[in-house]
Amino acid sequence: MERISSAHNSLVGLVRSLALRKHRKDTGLFVAQGLEHARKAKLNGFTPHTLLFDSDHAAEMQAAEIIAWGKAAGARLAALPSSLFTRISGRDNPQSPLMIFFQRWQPLEDRPPADPCVLVLDSVRDPGNLGTIMRTAEASATKRLYLMGQSCDPFSPEAVRASAGSVFAMKMSSLTRDQFSKIAKGWTGDIVGTHVEAAGSFRQPYRRPVLLLMGSESRGLPDELAAACTKLVRIPMAQGVQSLNLAAATALMLYELQLPFITDQRS
Amino acid sequence: MERISSAHNSLVGLVRSLALRKHRKDTGLFVAQGLEHARKAKLNGFTPHTLLFDSDHAAEMQAAEIIAWGKAAGARLAALPSSLFTRISGRDNPQSPLMIFFQRWQPLEDRPPADPCVLVLDSVRDPGNLGTIMRTAEASATKRLYLMGQSCDPFSPEAVRASAGSVFAMKMSSLTRDQFSKIAKGWTGDIVGTHVEAAGSFRQPYRRPVLLLMGSESRGLPDELAAACTKLVRIPMAQGVQSLNLAAATALMLYELQLPFITDQRS
Repeated sequence: MERISSAHNSLVGLVRSLALRKHRKDTGLFVAQGLEHARKAKLNGFTPHTLLFDSDHAAEMQAAEIIAWGKAAGARLAALPSSLFTRISGRDNPQSPLMIFFQRWQPLEDRPPADPCVLVLDSVRDPGNLGTIMRTAEASATKRLYLMGQSCDPFSPEAVRASAGSVFAMKMSSLTRDQFSKIAKGWTGDIVGTHVEAAGSFRQPYRRPVLLLMGSESRGLPDELAAACTKLVRIPMAQGVQSLNLAAATALMLYELQLPFITDQRS
Repeated sequence: MERISSAHNSLVGLVRSLALRKHRKDTGLFVAQGLEHARKAKLNGFTPHTLLFDSDHAAEMQAAEIIAWGKAAGARLAALPSSLFTRISGRDNPQSPLMIFFQRWQPLEDRPPADPCVLVLDSVRDPGNLGTIMRTAEASATKRLYLMGQSCDPFSPEAVRASAGSVFAMKMSSLTRDQFSKIAKGWTGDIVGTHVEAAGSFRQPYRRPVLLLMGSESRGLPDELAAACTKLVRIPMAQGVQSLNLAAATALMLYELQLPFITDQRS
């Protein structure tokens, strides 16, 4: 394993640059941290570009299956002194290994996807929300995710971290309104949206496959998208509350739609 | 209305100091921003200590009912130039007015509270989660909140903001394990906890009043608290997912427990 001790090393510079969306976009790379994320990445067939280890964390440096995985993929493997590792991790609690991956975006299908539940997020702005939503989506057996409009980056450090590794399990595509309209037109099941002025409760039967459409934090679902829904539903809220947090509302909807279809790992 | 133009003004110093938990604790004060928070504070009987307006935001400065409320409470009212206002707001998108309030903590009752659903959070660490949970709690008609163990501060700027004003609607108490044990002993309904190893699903009938106990982000519910539960339940999760985000899990539990009892503002 290579040893890096200089802050001027080009890999160190690369990790730092990937804190910026522009550099993630230009390179198609992103950063994740920790053995748990490494295992989820491996399980989901992600290709590591680089694995950097904190040389003071012996346990992680002996994670044989992760090191073998990196070597097999031709990744660069390097050990850094703790002080340097902490500086480039960008976190209060850095986790070893720090990994660079190739982003994975799913091409849009010509036909509607075969998934029984597809989640569409319109212009989600908060990366913490997006990460939490990916985590809940995976837990509820929902892996197909469309990001529409001015979405924040699912591969930002904050989104990756909030996803608790679920970012690696998602099949993600970026989508224009036109592309959404085309998919909506050919959709055979319900297209479901939450709307403050909807009459029906979110607890009702739905026709699968379901396309679940969630609006942005600030505006909710714009009229144009609400019009594409076959079912507009409302999550009841007590007097005085305008709306729920987007990740909380999405959790309620995903579990409502998917609960009968989750094969619980404990059952 | 007073005019403040110097960064050395004592009110400016006070606002800045309240970014720190220690100063919030010492003074019993906290900061909130924006007309929506002002209205929720007023509605819930909070006493304003200070109202600071961005003098470039005319609309907010003409919010007659908020200004009258401040004056009636003997609050200090002042206008600040935009540049200074932005600097003390500590946010990318400052909201006028910036308000200082007296914190409100509920004394612990000798008898169990009359609320049909009480939420107990053990050692919640993330203020964004705590804020989101308060927002969902109010939406689900759950206003009694016990914070146990090493909780983060519900009056921190991040928690207040994530609560979308619901912090003003909560009846909050801080609680020791011993105090919790006493309450649990006298509890007549179900004491419900989520646990990864529980056999029963969270979708089941519960006996009210319900005491809902949620563990911390990192550890979940410790054995000692799980033992106090009359019902340990599990939120099903697909293979490969260890846990849900705390605020997402709490939303699922609160809506499961409270949905039949929410008087939706639209109905």
